[in-house]
Amino acid sequence: MSCENQKKEKEDFYKASRKWKNNKIEMSFLNVSPDSHFSIHNLPYGIFSTSSNPKPRIGVAIGEYVLDLSEMSDLLTGPVIAKRKSVLHESTLNSFMGLGPQAWKEMRDSLQRILSSNEGVLRDNSDLQSRCLHRQSDATMHLPAVIGDYTDFYSSKNHATNVGTMVHLPVGYHGRASSVVVSGTPVRRPMGQTRPDDTKPPVFGPCRLLDFELEMAFFCGPGNSLGEPISVDKAQDHIFGMVIMNDWSDTLDIYFGSLFMTARDIQKWEYVPLGPFLGKNFSTTISPWVVTMDALQDFAVSNPIQEPTPLSYLQHKDPYTFDVKLEVALGCEALKNPVTICSTNLKNMYWTAKQQLVHHTVTGCNVRPGDLMGSGTISGETPDSYGSMLELCWKGTKPLDLGQGVSRKFLQDGDEVIMTGYCQGNGYRVGFGECKGKILPAFQSH
Amino acid sequence: MSCENQKKEKEDFYKASRKWKNNKIEMSFLNVSPDSHFSIHNLPYGIFSTSSNPKPRIGVAIGEYVLDLSEMSDLLTGPVIAKRKSVLHESTLNSFMGLGPQAWKEMRDSLQRILSSNEGVLRDNSDLQSRCLHRQSDATMHLPAVIGDYTDFYSSKNHATNVGTMVHLPVGYHGRASSVVVSGTPVRRPMGQTRPDDTKPPVFGPCRLLDFELEMAFFCGPGNSLGEPISVDKAQDHIFGMVIMNDWSDTLDIYFGSLFMTARDIQKWEYVPLGPFLGKNFSTTISPWVVTMDALQDFAVSNPIQEPTPLSYLQHKDPYTFDVKLEVALGCEALKNPVTICSTNLKNMYWTAKQQLVHHTVTGCNVRPGDLMGSGTISGETPDSYGSMLELCWKGTKPLDLGQGVSRKFLQDGDEVIMTGYCQGNGYRVGFGECKGKILPAFQSH
Repeated sequence: MSCENQKKEKEDFYKASRKWKNNKIEMSFLNVSPDSHFSIHNLPYGIFSTSSNPKPRIGVAIGEYVLDLSEMSDLLTGPVIAKRKSVLHESTLNSFMGLGPQAWKEMRDSLQRILSSNEGVLRDNSDLQSRCLHRQSDATMHLPAVIGDYTDFYSSKNHATNVGTMVHLPVGYHGRASSVVVSGTPVRRPMGQTRPDDTKPPVFGPCRLLDFELEMAFFCGPGNSLGEPISVDKAQDHIFGMVIMNDWSDTLDIYFGSLFMTARDIQKWEYVPLGPFLGKNFSTTISPWVVTMDALQDFAVSNPIQEPTPLSYLQHKDPYTFDVKLEVALGCEALKNPVTICSTNLKNMYWTAKQQLVHHTVTGCNVRPGDLMGSGTISGETPDSYGSMLELCWKGTKPLDLGQGVSRKFLQDGDEVIMTGYCQGNGYRVGFGECKGKILPAFQSH
Repeated sequence: MSCENQKKEKEDFYKASRKWKNNKIEMSFLNVSPDSHFSIHNLPYGIFSTSSNPKPRIGVAIGEYVLDLSEMSDLLTGPVIAKRKSVLHESTLNSFMGLGPQAWKEMRDSLQRILSSNEGVLRDNSDLQSRCLHRQSDATMHLPAVIGDYTDFYSSKNHATNVGTMVHLPVGYHGRASSVVVSGTPVRRPMGQTRPDDTKPPVFGPCRLLDFELEMAFFCGPGNSLGEPISVDKAQDHIFGMVIMNDWSDTLDIYFGSLFMTARDIQKWEYVPLGPFLGKNFSTTISPWVVTMDALQDFAVSNPIQEPTPLSYLQHKDPYTFDVKLEVALGCEALKNPVTICSTNLKNMYWTAKQQLVHHTVTGCNVRPGDLMGSGTISGETPDSYGSMLELCWKGTKPLDLGQGVSRKFLQDGDEVIMTGYCQGNGYRVGFGECKGKILPAFQSH
């Protein structure tokens, strides 16, 4: 089949799939509130443990519950999954991610069937329910995968406006995988060298200009062999699902305004010319539930118009841009409740995740199941849609007024940043839950 | 004990250790040629398999042999090792690296004793020998560890001359761990976007300016907790050993001459301003044997004078600069034998590995056993000591004459780059073997 025909067939498949979904409003036998992020249309995967069973294992979020897949693997069927049941008993999602789209679809179909109101196998078996279903409030969440490599892109249209290269290819850089942590992990203010006065030597101390960056990220599915790029028509078979990501930062935001404007703190001094290093390696927080691309597919919208037209290896027509409403809230002791400081949308991305993956592997660079790819800071066009303090405060010149006498230019010790995001369906949501972290004071050696 | 006293004690310990070593010339019962890289003073660790036993396992190089540790773990003694024998049966060195300096010393002592001419336990047991000793020529070498993260520094004094920041701190960037491969793995010429003419749009094709970069790299031992930096007086407990590294490159060499000079190919266009990405992610080759810091300690020389004096968190007095003679040779079909094109020395490094590690973790960034840290290109002061084609050919203006009618400005398909390095002792060597790779033509999609 020609490449064009393959594309056409896929587009038709997704159109049909969307239509089917919209007609067939599924319900779970479990009570799921319309504003829950975890409807039966979502079914994101995560790694959890409980006080009664501290072994980390694979779970699926449904309403207020986690479904323990290791306790019900016999019920999960399909030609691929049947031969690879052992992956459902592992402590990370890497192997499941590596199985590929057919296995993912089989699992999704099995889970939707088992959880639907028409199906008795779990609904009518209270013994099985007591083994399989835990309240999310009783579960401890862990990193979904061992992250072999983490790459961050720069792909927000509004960040890109002033930068020529950005419209030709998805610019990215390699990040630090060891310091990717799951939502809820405290974040320690980093120490480092800064140069407050360019005429004097650098000084050592806690960073002053600590910031968040609102991003999303995708987990890779099956990898490619070293030396063999992933082509754009195959790219979606290599993308498993997405999380919300806070790429904590103490660095300049190079796309803010002009190319080499220096802004934040430690990295103002260190950044040029090898790109982000210490200012980006102290912590990256991700939300614990990986929402599959199958679940997001219903919320695909037209891709942004790309002008100039990208080179052919980056071109695809099928929609792979997603309508995910994103919010950032800031909490601290002086505030009664966290205050929303940013509202934006994933659809503001200039490059699609498929284009990012294809570009990343074009040199022959290999990716592996569980590798993480950050979107870059997601900012919209209006001042309340900027995805970092740096932008929201216009480089610190306009402090954010949070009410109750609290204002901020950058993050202070004790501040908590809470990111959330969801897709709005007809009476249900497909959401990501929370990605949050609280700032601890800088480390003091003893 | 005060920090100063601790340092003093360590310096005394190493002085005593060096003296002891120099007095006591050990001999192995195995015949080791004086120019072998793998004397009894070396004993580097690697992961190997054989045709009769394809399971990758831990081996130690001695002369022309590999000693299979999984077959002789009963003989390896010491208070720490005795409790952790299982690590000797693993397929990577990560767990052994994570045990720390006491375990490493116990293993070294055990191995030197078992292999010495005075000890009969292996010498007089031909059954055990036939199980434990394999010819290196019969062994397939694998990556020594699962590399969780790979970071590359820029630390060569001569590269640094023109760059202000470099003398204040070790500048580094996060690299791609998935594409680190073991010596002998072919390297496919990458594809990518280039912009041969700044007035026209970018074009797509195989990179033209493929280059090698001569580096060394260290493997981390025990890691640190996220948020808790490694202090300089503890740094050496976290460094396991070193390998030779070829950080294949298709990118500009930013320290060559001036800060933002663009030079090579794909990355000329993409590089600015997020640092190395595609031009550095298609392959990084390392030598298979990890030479321990204990083995290198005998070849420590004074650290370079650092002016201005680094901030106190980076200061240490004990010598941690090593006299390792390094060579690069280039082979191709038209040449009868590979031709040496570069001779330099690891002691040209401006920053020590301890300083690099301390700087990397100063923000609280965590490292893990098996993480890899590249030195950056090692260049000396003379034209024949430059560690890349870019420098050797002075940006392509002076092609290298290899004799027999062959010359090169950059690497061609079919070229093989062979890096070697060793420390010269009194009648013996502590060497790294080879780090080599051959260029394959760019990938053609079908």
